[in-house]
Amino acid sequence: MKKSALQKARAAYQPKLPIALTGAVKVVEGRPTESVADQDAIRKLFPNTYGLPEIRFEKNTNPTPGKPVNVGVILSGGQAPGGHNVISGLFDGIKKIHRDSRLFGFLMGPGGLVDHKYIELTAPIIDEYRNTGGFDIIGSGRTKLEKVEQFDKGLEILKELGITAVVIIGGDDSNTNAAILAEYYKEKNTGIQVIGCPKTIDGDLKNNVIETSFGFDTATKVYSEVIGNIQRDCNSAKKYWHFVKLMGRSASHIALECALQCQPNICLISEEIEAKDMSLAQIVKYIADIVTARAKEGNNFGTILIPEGLIEFIPEFKRLIRELNELLGANAEKVAGMNHKELTEFILANLSPENVAALETLPASVARQLMLDRDPHGNVQVSLIETEKLLSEMVGEYLKKSEEFKAAKGKFSALHHFFGYEGRCADPSNFDADYCYSLGYNAAALINAGVTGYMSSIRNLVKPAIQWIPGGIPITMMMNIERRNAEDKPVIQKALVRLDGAPFKKFASQREEWAQNTCYIYPGPIQYFGPAEVCDQPSMTLKYESQH
Amino acid sequence: MKKSALQKARAAYQPKLPIALTGAVKVVEGRPTESVADQDAIRKLFPNTYGLPEIRFEKNTNPTPGKPVNVGVILSGGQAPGGHNVISGLFDGIKKIHRDSRLFGFLMGPGGLVDHKYIELTAPIIDEYRNTGGFDIIGSGRTKLEKVEQFDKGLEILKELGITAVVIIGGDDSNTNAAILAEYYKEKNTGIQVIGCPKTIDGDLKNNVIETSFGFDTATKVYSEVIGNIQRDCNSAKKYWHFVKLMGRSASHIALECALQCQPNICLISEEIEAKDMSLAQIVKYIADIVTARAKEGNNFGTILIPEGLIEFIPEFKRLIRELNELLGANAEKVAGMNHKELTEFILANLSPENVAALETLPASVARQLMLDRDPHGNVQVSLIETEKLLSEMVGEYLKKSEEFKAAKGKFSALHHFFGYEGRCADPSNFDADYCYSLGYNAAALINAGVTGYMSSIRNLVKPAIQWIPGGIPITMMMNIERRNAEDKPVIQKALVRLDGAPFKKFASQREEWAQNTCYIYPGPIQYFGPAEVCDQPSMTLKYESQH
Repeated sequence: MKKSALQKARAAYQPKLPIALTGAVKVVEGRPTESVADQDAIRKLFPNTYGLPEIRFEKNTNPTPGKPVNVGVILSGGQAPGGHNVISGLFDGIKKIHRDSRLFGFLMGPGGLVDHKYIELTAPIIDEYRNTGGFDIIGSGRTKLEKVEQFDKGLEILKELGITAVVIIGGDDSNTNAAILAEYYKEKNTGIQVIGCPKTIDGDLKNNVIETSFGFDTATKVYSEVIGNIQRDCNSAKKYWHFVKLMGRSASHIALECALQCQPNICLISEEIEAKDMSLAQIVKYIADIVTARAKEGNNFGTILIPEGLIEFIPEFKRLIRELNELLGANAEKVAGMNHKELTEFILANLSPENVAALETLPASVARQLMLDRDPHGNVQVSLIETEKLLSEMVGEYLKKSEEFKAAKGKFSALHHFFGYEGRCADPSNFDADYCYSLGYNAAALINAGVTGYMSSIRNLVKPAIQWIPGGIPITMMMNIERRNAEDKPVIQKALVRLDGAPFKKFASQREEWAQNTCYIYPGPIQYFGPAEVCDQPSMTLKYESQH
Repeated sequence: MKKSALQKARAAYQPKLPIALTGAVKVVEGRPTESVADQDAIRKLFPNTYGLPEIRFEKNTNPTPGKPVNVGVILSGGQAPGGHNVISGLFDGIKKIHRDSRLFGFLMGPGGLVDHKYIELTAPIIDEYRNTGGFDIIGSGRTKLEKVEQFDKGLEILKELGITAVVIIGGDDSNTNAAILAEYYKEKNTGIQVIGCPKTIDGDLKNNVIETSFGFDTATKVYSEVIGNIQRDCNSAKKYWHFVKLMGRSASHIALECALQCQPNICLISEEIEAKDMSLAQIVKYIADIVTARAKEGNNFGTILIPEGLIEFIPEFKRLIRELNELLGANAEKVAGMNHKELTEFILANLSPENVAALETLPASVARQLMLDRDPHGNVQVSLIETEKLLSEMVGEYLKKSEEFKAAKGKFSALHHFFGYEGRCADPSNFDADYCYSLGYNAAALINAGVTGYMSSIRNLVKPAIQWIPGGIPITMMMNIERRNAEDKPVIQKALVRLDGAPFKKFASQREEWAQNTCYIYPGPIQYFGPAEVCDQPSMTLKYESQH
């Protein structure tokens, strides 16, 4: 691998650890825990791993010698900056416990465990990947570990390799599955521990005990860099409205964080739109009103951030998509042979009047896409809808008819961007490099403590790393029962943007000012070598949440 | 203006200057120059500013005291990182000559000179913008200065403000116009000097005497950062082909530089495609063959860089577009009333058979766009064609029919990106910060030397800044006559990628290796505070060209 100059220089960075993890640790147990909801149901599903205590690590001045341990590690789901540092922290952690400890990486995600594909991660390999972005050290994948046959198949290779602990680095679903696997291996008395690590750039895996998922910090900093650059261009040319869609699945955390960092003219928050039951027409009017107000001041330019999940949060859209899916599902055979014209006619004849009306407010291309483009299960492909273009087209149409806009001599010209893949594999910021390394190192401590069904937890994150608090949280504590694919399932509650939370309230208190005036901030690229106020800042979301 | 932490820290950066500019300078004149071609025609058009000598500045140990000067500055055309540093260098330069010198900025481009819109740029304003990206200090615009009435209107305000020198920061067209303005003001004996500065991220304003335009370095580093991140994602998920289109107008310098920095699997170079007279089908086959070869190794992923100007360089496309424009131009009245169906029929009935054939190889959406979407002058809107999607769609179609791909059990799934606005206003790299500051400072020296019609020139750029060679180049020296809008015009020759140049040859010698294997480099974000090998590197293009 030919390395860039930055990679070479960055390899020497020694991630910071909480002081408690810098020597031997002792376990301090808290009180038994309960799940966030549906306690009886969750307890019944996890008889062996429910109700465990939170634990915290403190310095141990009188340690007993550790024993060697063989550990397996899995990267699950979408990439997030810092994954390599979780693995290098884990490696260093188990080596600290005993130098004969060994680490095995299962390849291309959870599928590697089931299919027995793995490599041993030795020091020379680990050293190639310290402080780098990407999941390419062992690859990642989206196979879901949820069936007993998979668990049993995995058990074979774990036994063969003498592995007694598996660390699963993943998002909410992967950690849910880690809890199920932990319960199963415990029930079967396999002696195999399962530990989770909170990963996702989307920022939707957090709660009272997990302050943030790793990768969110770096990814939002990369997006904020390019949004800032676009804003500076926008403010220099003064002739375009930039519609910027941002990854993040359902939740709007990424859009909100980027808004706090860059102060765009507009940022849509899906959770608010749902709470206010706003229609697409109302959203379009909201944007068009701001475009018009700025046009009155001669400012025919601006920036708009749009969360990826928006469409699914617009109640009228949700209803339309649900009815479309039901209608076509119930008539699967009938519609299978139809051509586009027949299908369009069938849909319009059978959809409820209010959903036909909703369909008719949409630009033709989007309406066509909704009616005709379907995934292999016959469902509407919401993620393919280019929301940024949908909105700019509708705003343009609205403004063409607006007397007020005409009177203001307004001009409206739009450009579009979508950022996601640009940030998921960036080299981790100092924050993520330290946080991830600590999460991995801490996972080793959890393994040494003999626990299972826990998530690696590092808290107090707005403080300097030395003051961070390491420990473990029983994964069942974060669970509730949700309806998924017509089944009740135990899952980790997904964290959406809270409208009563400090980050949203901060944004809401300033957005009128940002809309009317040009208050852009230009964060610039992530820096690794400069002054601490530039290089060592956690996300604004984390800062505001901790002040709360 | 609320500033980011990086902006605050970066404000303190003192750009480096060539040693010759650090004190008083003396002018060393070279021999009289000739234009690169069409010498007689250019001489005739520029009787007062043709044939001037190149000049070089050296340290002056016996300087005479300078006189105060009032200078006007204009930002012309698209944004490029470092424009603010040209202005701050110019400001410091004229203040060094005499502290009573004053700098005026004309607003929103050359139009500000014509419309008498300006501000005085004082020290507190300048200090707000040092080492920042963007052109927002005075804005930019695309008004072309080419008519006598504009020159005369400009003269009024220059006289009113006592301005005796104008610095125009722009690309090839803007510098061409600077030369015309210089000639006119000289002919009229106005006593007003005009100096140009070479700006454009596209990198197409360079020649034997101008080593690079400013902004190219920073913009390509930003694009390489995000391309590198995408490559790391690509290599972690191993399931997508990323088609990345890059800004840069006609020339492929940006794509080539990013290829040298990131080592993608494929990079198309428009100039090569034209030279080889490749058809769209051949380009599609070239890509599909590489996709297939990688699929055989189980690598169903990769990255492809596509220069923005590609379409215009594919000879069959060029011919098709030319005939479409001519056909519809000649029948403007007839086609004006036609609906889409009639227009399509008319085109297909009247186009030459080979161009109908070319049209039929295109995906329906692109063919429709070529036939139906036209600009106000009735021309095909080439820049609206999403080349990255066109190519991925055609490659996908090709692979569906390929037995070889099927036999390899290949999968092909594409994602698309277009980068341009993300890099034009980034904070300048150290290279661009230094280069731009030096260009501006040097422009002040040219003003003090009393010359006009010169471009500010800093050479020896691959060496440390202290060894850079400052001077001035007569703009007429870079000119030739070209046909533009049915008129012969004197213009600065645009620099396309040379297929016999060192950067292309380096790329061509390695691309087969990059195509088959995965040789990605991940450059990471621009760093301002780290070790010199990370922070102070010029572009690969410049390095290879200087070795040549």
